[in-house]
Amino acid sequence: MPPQASAVSFAPLQPSRLRARRAAIDTYQQHVIYMRTDCHVCRAEGFEAQAQVELVARGRHVLGILHRVADGWLQPGEVALSDAAWQALQVREQEEVVVRHPPVLDSLAHLRAKVHGARLDYAAMRALMEDVARGRLSDIHLAAFVTACSGGRLDTGETTALTRAMVDVGERLEWGAAPVMDKHCVGGLPGNRTTLLVVPIVAACGVLMPKTSSRAITSPAGTADTMETLAPVQLDTAAMRRVVEREGGCIAWGGALQLSPADDVLIRVERPLNLDSEGQLVASILSKKAAVGSQRVVVDIPVGPTAKVRSEAAARALAESLRSVGAALGMQVRALLTDGSQPVGRGIGPALEARDVMAVLQGAADAPADLRERALLLAGEVLEMAGRAAAGGGLALARSVLDDGRALRKFVAICEAQGGMRVPPGAPHRQVIEAHAGGVVVAIDNRIVARAAKLAGAPRDPAAGAQLHVHVGDHVEAGQPLYTLHAESPGELAYACSFVRARLPAIEIGSAP
Amino acid sequence: MPPQASAVSFAPLQPSRLRARRAAIDTYQQHVIYMRTDCHVCRAEGFEAQAQVELVARGRHVLGILHRVADGWLQPGEVALSDAAWQALQVREQEEVVVRHPPVLDSLAHLRAKVHGARLDYAAMRALMEDVARGRLSDIHLAAFVTACSGGRLDTGETTALTRAMVDVGERLEWGAAPVMDKHCVGGLPGNRTTLLVVPIVAACGVLMPKTSSRAITSPAGTADTMETLAPVQLDTAAMRRVVEREGGCIAWGGALQLSPADDVLIRVERPLNLDSEGQLVASILSKKAAVGSQRVVVDIPVGPTAKVRSEAAARALAESLRSVGAALGMQVRALLTDGSQPVGRGIGPALEARDVMAVLQGAADAPADLRERALLLAGEVLEMAGRAAAGGGLALARSVLDDGRALRKFVAICEAQGGMRVPPGAPHRQVIEAHAGGVVVAIDNRIVARAAKLAGAPRDPAAGAQLHVHVGDHVEAGQPLYTLHAESPGELAYACSFVRARLPAIEIGSAP
Repeated sequence: MPPQASAVSFAPLQPSRLRARRAAIDTYQQHVIYMRTDCHVCRAEGFEAQAQVELVARGRHVLGILHRVADGWLQPGEVALSDAAWQALQVREQEEVVVRHPPVLDSLAHLRAKVHGARLDYAAMRALMEDVARGRLSDIHLAAFVTACSGGRLDTGETTALTRAMVDVGERLEWGAAPVMDKHCVGGLPGNRTTLLVVPIVAACGVLMPKTSSRAITSPAGTADTMETLAPVQLDTAAMRRVVEREGGCIAWGGALQLSPADDVLIRVERPLNLDSEGQLVASILSKKAAVGSQRVVVDIPVGPTAKVRSEAAARALAESLRSVGAALGMQVRALLTDGSQPVGRGIGPALEARDVMAVLQGAADAPADLRERALLLAGEVLEMAGRAAAGGGLALARSVLDDGRALRKFVAICEAQGGMRVPPGAPHRQVIEAHAGGVVVAIDNRIVARAAKLAGAPRDPAAGAQLHVHVGDHVEAGQPLYTLHAESPGELAYACSFVRARLPAIEIGSAP
Repeated sequence: MPPQASAVSFAPLQPSRLRARRAAIDTYQQHVIYMRTDCHVCRAEGFEAQAQVELVARGRHVLGILHRVADGWLQPGEVALSDAAWQALQVREQEEVVVRHPPVLDSLAHLRAKVHGARLDYAAMRALMEDVARGRLSDIHLAAFVTACSGGRLDTGETTALTRAMVDVGERLEWGAAPVMDKHCVGGLPGNRTTLLVVPIVAACGVLMPKTSSRAITSPAGTADTMETLAPVQLDTAAMRRVVEREGGCIAWGGALQLSPADDVLIRVERPLNLDSEGQLVASILSKKAAVGSQRVVVDIPVGPTAKVRSEAAARALAESLRSVGAALGMQVRALLTDGSQPVGRGIGPALEARDVMAVLQGAADAPADLRERALLLAGEVLEMAGRAAAGGGLALARSVLDDGRALRKFVAICEAQGGMRVPPGAPHRQVIEAHAGGVVVAIDNRIVARAAKLAGAPRDPAAGAQLHVHVGDHVEAGQPLYTLHAESPGELAYACSFVRARLPAIEIGSAP
């Protein structure tokens, strides 16, 4: 039976048009559309504040939330766009745009089904990721999707479907050479910035490692944030290809490349929610790897009571999920479970971590040994997996490349190829946190340290964060500095200090044995 | 061991101050704070776009999302507030306000625990509902909470804790007389507007029924939306008390009364998500009932394949949950399972439903019999539960009060007491949907009809919606009108029509038997 509505005839409607202007309002990534309260298009189309509105010009579409303006800065016949919406639509000032209701989104039925406990297949995930990547879902819908997939509510089949869908709605790179290597750290361990060491070691051995990294989701720094304090990371595909062809490796921000663009959108809501579920973690990691053309991947999973992964059982489950979803997508994934009991190195925050990295590359006397050893372990694993070193021989090869300066030279060359090396900034406002009593450091809480670094402004302010002066096992005297908070503004320093003051200590001191 | 931060001394910081002004931007209920891109406070406090910002003035606090303005309409030293934020803070133009980071919310830890599958106790629910009611949670966090509680993820204990917490963070009314009666319909059945009939019948019998109703969550009309086309519903506590003391009953909008205010905030995100989970449904219903002082409640649960409750098993589970949570809060709840297979009456949408109600009250020849019979059944049950009629005698009493005009006179008196009776508006734009072939009406899809009515503008536009011309079992000829869409603007009419055109028919016609 055909739809009955075929019996209905519709009067042709003129599309509603307004002249576009830049509102000059920064709403971060959110698209906001401003129309006058008395606008005839609002009346004709029935738009109210917070309605979703679609603008069309030159074949480009932008969806945004409507805010209605009664003040005089918006003229009759005009529609204004927030900075993000203006960049997305790419029109000129006063250019005519069509203003209309967005199409009804069928993907929302899949979202509701997932909330109610249904399994989603590839077609459902694909429809959702299309709409996510195109910016058609509101923050409220994105938050519901992220939540509905958290807490173990994605099985392996769904995670594979989600990963494949995330890859398929974006660009996909190919390199024409094999093997293409990659590494990833699951995170949750402040200061664990091994990528900036592994890539130059591996590339210096002639192995291809076109590395893309993310900005922080819930941590005080992502690898891209840290690298950006040393060199530009916002490379397009052509620039990335030039760097990799010249140096064999790169450390670029993935978000600039339209690789798994749905992931970047989801991260926007995962960040304020402070959620990063296993299924989405696997999909996020592997969709980026598949899209960038990686074939063999080493994954570092730090395990510790205050790391992202808290138990060996959880780590093994995650490793198995990465392996099986990776295999389904044609990738070989090897996971290493590492010590996640305390932060790595001294710095926590983009610039502070970059300094630790440079100290290791330069073989400085005070370079953090823990960061160095972790990087060598991972680089050795990558070299073995690539067939460049025999089983058991990767570590020694990595160590020789780091110690003889080849890794430093390669890192500098990569930075120069990415646009020029630079010096990480320093923060003008600092506060030392001292030991309240003497004793031995028995524990450092990764989450509290990371939270304090974030409240101090990291990663948004690259110089902000925390610098640790002690590690677990160190003896301290009363009044001895434990860590220093760094901030770019006094307000943020006060905010971080008031958090530290109100909490249990980030660094626990016991009586000396 | 005391927190180590006791060893830290902090330099006293001057609070950051700006002059407030109304931005004259309508963002619906969302609080948006506008500061200049070059504002010294942004710099000092490290605020970026989309950051949460707190404004304080005269002891009042407002939390909002920051949007940064580069255009000239905002002067140096000024902070502008969206309409909702301006109303909440209640300052004068150019009055000085303190601008600062909001306090760290401990309730978010409970939210994350719930997302990860933990059970929440009363203390956790109370902390969350405090922050929800005070507007401290962003839409993203609210959406995560609603999602994490959906799909059967709240057990009876948690639902009771949530309900109690929702009551405890708001006002609570007491009436000094007993019994205080109430009724509720679970919804999902378009046009089921029995409250406007039950209240005058019961009140005409001298039984106290101080009824508060909600606006629509996911439907084309809530009872408050429909009542508002006949009389003012935005009564404060004192006004509501005056109406009830004079007439024995009222039909007021609950949202104006600060009864379970957290519920009103949650509804803001439930609406776009189109989610309304069992646990939250029970908490939403019973928190309003407990807060308004109700002691005995009749709940109508329509059951049908396209109603909100789709199976008798689900209805029985919901009834049991309502009974047990009600008992835990000291309320007697009786649930009636009713036929939810098709819409009730003819109108769907505030004004169209109000006309059906008036036809029943006036005893009009063409009054919808199904609406009348459902209202009599419920009114009879309330009268029996109140002890005004013997078991089995309620229906006859209700019928006599409706038929002899006492219910109509009481309804008019209530409308007058609430501020004056008025005539529901009519819609200027209409489209008739005709039968594509002759036959018998075998099914009407509540969801598709409701969706079409919403796309036409209901309940935001009170005159918008759908009017049914047939019911299940009716014989129709090809070309005979099945229903008419009503809209206040041509854009919305086109939007609803394009939805109807793209879908399976809302009204299914089979071959005549």
